[in-house]
Amino acid sequence: MATFSQSGFWRGGNTLKVSMELFSKNRQRLCESLSSHPTLPSRALIILQGGMAETRNCTDHEPIFRQESFFHWCFGVIEPDFLGAIDVATGKSILFIPRLPESYVSWMGRIKEPNEFKTIYDVDFVYYTDEIENVLSHFQPTSVNDQQAQSKSITHQLPLLLVLHGLNTDSGNHCKQAHFNGIEKFHVDTTTLHPVISECRVIKTDLELEVLAYTNKISSEAHKFVMLHIKPGMYEYELEALFQYYCYRYGGMRHLSYTCICASGENSAVLHYGHAGAPNDRQLKDTDLCLFDMGGEYYCYASDITCSFPVSGHFTREQRIVYEAVLDANRHVMESVRPGVSWVDMHLLAERVQLQHLLKAGLLEGNINDMMKVRLCAIFMPHGLGHMIGIDTHDVAGYLDPTTRIQLPGLKSLRTNRNLKEGMCLTIEPGIYFNELLLNKAYSDPEQAKFLIKSELDKYLGMGGVRIEDNIVVTKDGCRLLTQVPRTCEEIEQWMKNKHEKLNVDDYKKFCELNGKYRYDNQQLKVNKIKDNVSCNGDK
Amino acid sequence: MATFSQSGFWRGGNTLKVSMELFSKNRQRLCESLSSHPTLPSRALIILQGGMAETRNCTDHEPIFRQESFFHWCFGVIEPDFLGAIDVATGKSILFIPRLPESYVSWMGRIKEPNEFKTIYDVDFVYYTDEIENVLSHFQPTSVNDQQAQSKSITHQLPLLLVLHGLNTDSGNHCKQAHFNGIEKFHVDTTTLHPVISECRVIKTDLELEVLAYTNKISSEAHKFVMLHIKPGMYEYELEALFQYYCYRYGGMRHLSYTCICASGENSAVLHYGHAGAPNDRQLKDTDLCLFDMGGEYYCYASDITCSFPVSGHFTREQRIVYEAVLDANRHVMESVRPGVSWVDMHLLAERVQLQHLLKAGLLEGNINDMMKVRLCAIFMPHGLGHMIGIDTHDVAGYLDPTTRIQLPGLKSLRTNRNLKEGMCLTIEPGIYFNELLLNKAYSDPEQAKFLIKSELDKYLGMGGVRIEDNIVVTKDGCRLLTQVPRTCEEIEQWMKNKHEKLNVDDYKKFCELNGKYRYDNQQLKVNKIKDNVSCNGDK
Repeated sequence: MATFSQSGFWRGGNTLKVSMELFSKNRQRLCESLSSHPTLPSRALIILQGGMAETRNCTDHEPIFRQESFFHWCFGVIEPDFLGAIDVATGKSILFIPRLPESYVSWMGRIKEPNEFKTIYDVDFVYYTDEIENVLSHFQPTSVNDQQAQSKSITHQLPLLLVLHGLNTDSGNHCKQAHFNGIEKFHVDTTTLHPVISECRVIKTDLELEVLAYTNKISSEAHKFVMLHIKPGMYEYELEALFQYYCYRYGGMRHLSYTCICASGENSAVLHYGHAGAPNDRQLKDTDLCLFDMGGEYYCYASDITCSFPVSGHFTREQRIVYEAVLDANRHVMESVRPGVSWVDMHLLAERVQLQHLLKAGLLEGNINDMMKVRLCAIFMPHGLGHMIGIDTHDVAGYLDPTTRIQLPGLKSLRTNRNLKEGMCLTIEPGIYFNELLLNKAYSDPEQAKFLIKSELDKYLGMGGVRIEDNIVVTKDGCRLLTQVPRTCEEIEQWMKNKHEKLNVDDYKKFCELNGKYRYDNQQLKVNKIKDNVSCNGDK
Repeated sequence: MATFSQSGFWRGGNTLKVSMELFSKNRQRLCESLSSHPTLPSRALIILQGGMAETRNCTDHEPIFRQESFFHWCFGVIEPDFLGAIDVATGKSILFIPRLPESYVSWMGRIKEPNEFKTIYDVDFVYYTDEIENVLSHFQPTSVNDQQAQSKSITHQLPLLLVLHGLNTDSGNHCKQAHFNGIEKFHVDTTTLHPVISECRVIKTDLELEVLAYTNKISSEAHKFVMLHIKPGMYEYELEALFQYYCYRYGGMRHLSYTCICASGENSAVLHYGHAGAPNDRQLKDTDLCLFDMGGEYYCYASDITCSFPVSGHFTREQRIVYEAVLDANRHVMESVRPGVSWVDMHLLAERVQLQHLLKAGLLEGNINDMMKVRLCAIFMPHGLGHMIGIDTHDVAGYLDPTTRIQLPGLKSLRTNRNLKEGMCLTIEPGIYFNELLLNKAYSDPEQAKFLIKSELDKYLGMGGVRIEDNIVVTKDGCRLLTQVPRTCEEIEQWMKNKHEKLNVDDYKKFCELNGKYRYDNQQLKVNKIKDNVSCNGDK
């Protein structure tokens, strides 16, 4: 079995080996953050409930299990129906595993002993989930300096349990609190854990960055693979199939991070195209621009990459105007990102750059500052500039306080309004879309209409839109680019010239392996302050 | 948009066009069955709730929506969050669609009008879900002969609502009853609908059979494609990736019917290998036997096919012994299937044939009838012979009365104990597995051990197992085989000889198209009473 080798999680071959140290470091960081909490007794245990096996409606159809994200961040467990505990004072970790029926052997495989899980996941103790009440009741305090606990009532001989309860600001959902039979005997704290663990998840360790870089590397290759295979007459979903195939076969990524958006033509203006009601089922034309927003997931770490390119391999004049506006916005943001910078300011910067391009190209008229005041760019970019990325595609803790969300067009869709910190991972994904309904609304609003040159804009209606989405990590003095795909029009046209030479996937993979350790050679980038494909503006 | 063409559901290109008549026929059958119900008032409306959009845990991650199976059977709707109603007396159908927010236009696409859905799904009326209480309250009885209703109390001026409530005998779950604001004003019947609609689903119409034949055709091609690409050194999941890719790209199948079981070597003895805890991650050896149980789904109709074959393309002596035992059981059952036959008897027939082969090959000693008495074959085949298949892989109504389930080894795992009827679709999937734990248990039971020749059986331990799974439909006087893959050892070896000639997927697809309209030429089948690959024993 390849999944857990001696050196940790691994899907064999050239896939990434991930050490269990990633999770012990995460637990350690979490305990350190909690230890400084003023009101916490020394006998406090974090209790997390892993994801549960689920069936579809009333049937016995089980979708492939994917671990709950907080639980994954703490333990890296791939199986369903676990619970986990961490002693805040000592960092000692316990996994509680389900006691499986004898029939499991025939149907699901050999039943692993607790000690095997202890080795695999490198935790301190493993018990069965039906033992949890008893284990926690008798868990010994390991800190001798237990003054706080002693000053409290007798019930504090039982440890305080810290369980997760808090708002996900992207979904509006609250996470499900851990539950086990007997939990009612304990004092349970539902407020302390969520903000602390969420904030820990925001800052990625080097071990986490290695996984995120890997998911970006494989997903970048897969995007480039798709570009080589595209032909007029294909259906959008055929490219989705190719992307998924590449990620899984060559990257060991069984899950994608999110539903593939394989939009062509006017579909590109629909931000989350590709869902069940619009399932990537349009046939490609030679003159189409594609907007493919797709990312693979490895060991629950996400990637989120958008490439926009012409089916033909050659940009038309109009496609190039829009594409270069978006790329310039993307690169301006990338140049400006560093610790302390406000993400709202980055959004506004991207808007301003895009408006400047549209003005210069004759689609708009008037003063940029005036356009900014009436939120003109939100007609063309009704989404936020980007979001945190990590174990979830839209990663936690975008808003420390959700009431601070700005309620203006475009800005209200921002998934975070935070100031950047070193170690944050984000997407940078400006875009320009020509959505007929949004444009018609703007034409009927005199405050906005005065800037719009309808006769010019009409020429762009069928194009759909362009989005250019990269994944970055904020460094000490800038950012590091994780995504490695052709980005300038010239690079894309050059890459797509190879189309008919590399249709065999094995040849392509070999080509990738020889080609600078999978890295796309970015030296031709127009924004040439980006010295290589990894370091962005950190070397300035 | 290809998904709904004028002629119904379609994913473009060579994928199958499915007429909406499939669903109107289903509704008509359902109403006819209900009409004969003795206690039903004439003003009765079936209310079904479609599947709801869901997010993963507390995040905004949305898995790709797949329709709830009863709702799909009635309406063929691909979008989430619908409800549907059918007037039992007239068969008139109503869809209730969610009222979408304006932001849907930017994020998800154009908002379709009720009339568009009326055309797409060919129903009689479309309203919004927030109108449901009002619409149902004022729904006019269309049957003039309304004596039963008139004889009841005044509350029967509101129609009786028939909602789904019943046990799924595979999962043990009950289906979720339809709910809407205001339903408490109506009389709700929770007992009538479930057994009637389940029984309707058991018998497939010609229109449904066409879809099931298509999913089998594409999945069979994909299995053959996988066989051509297999090489020692690959990981099992690479073949899963290839299968999925083929089904989606060339068959338009975005979903697979169930998690792929890509088992090699000893993993083949684990019946539901491939789940998250055992994720098809073993590296293939040249001497391995593979057991690949994989099926694609098109427009929610399933396929469920298992191919067992050697990585090398050549069976060893032991592999051939086991394979031919299982194939012989499969073909004996296929020969015997016809209306009126008991599925329990078919299971026992398969066991008997397999035991005979194992006896002849010197793995067992003693009398077959005595072996049958102690359920010896359940050591080697701890699962049931097969199950209903349709919109669910394990389709509904396996047990009319779940208390009649036989509680003996092997037989207790049967998903149905019914007598066959024309139009039922089932899998035939006998198997022989060498599971060390099950064998050790048998060696320690004198009643079973006396039949087992341990020295011989030990030679088979590393092989894992063999399963041969076909999908059939019961015909008037026999059955029709839907699965089209190489089945005899000779056919498999012959097919895999082509391995290195057809690595290019486009060439392969062309080959399939030219090759007798996708049909595998089965003329060489050992059981030569099967005259062609479609008709089984119907022509005898």
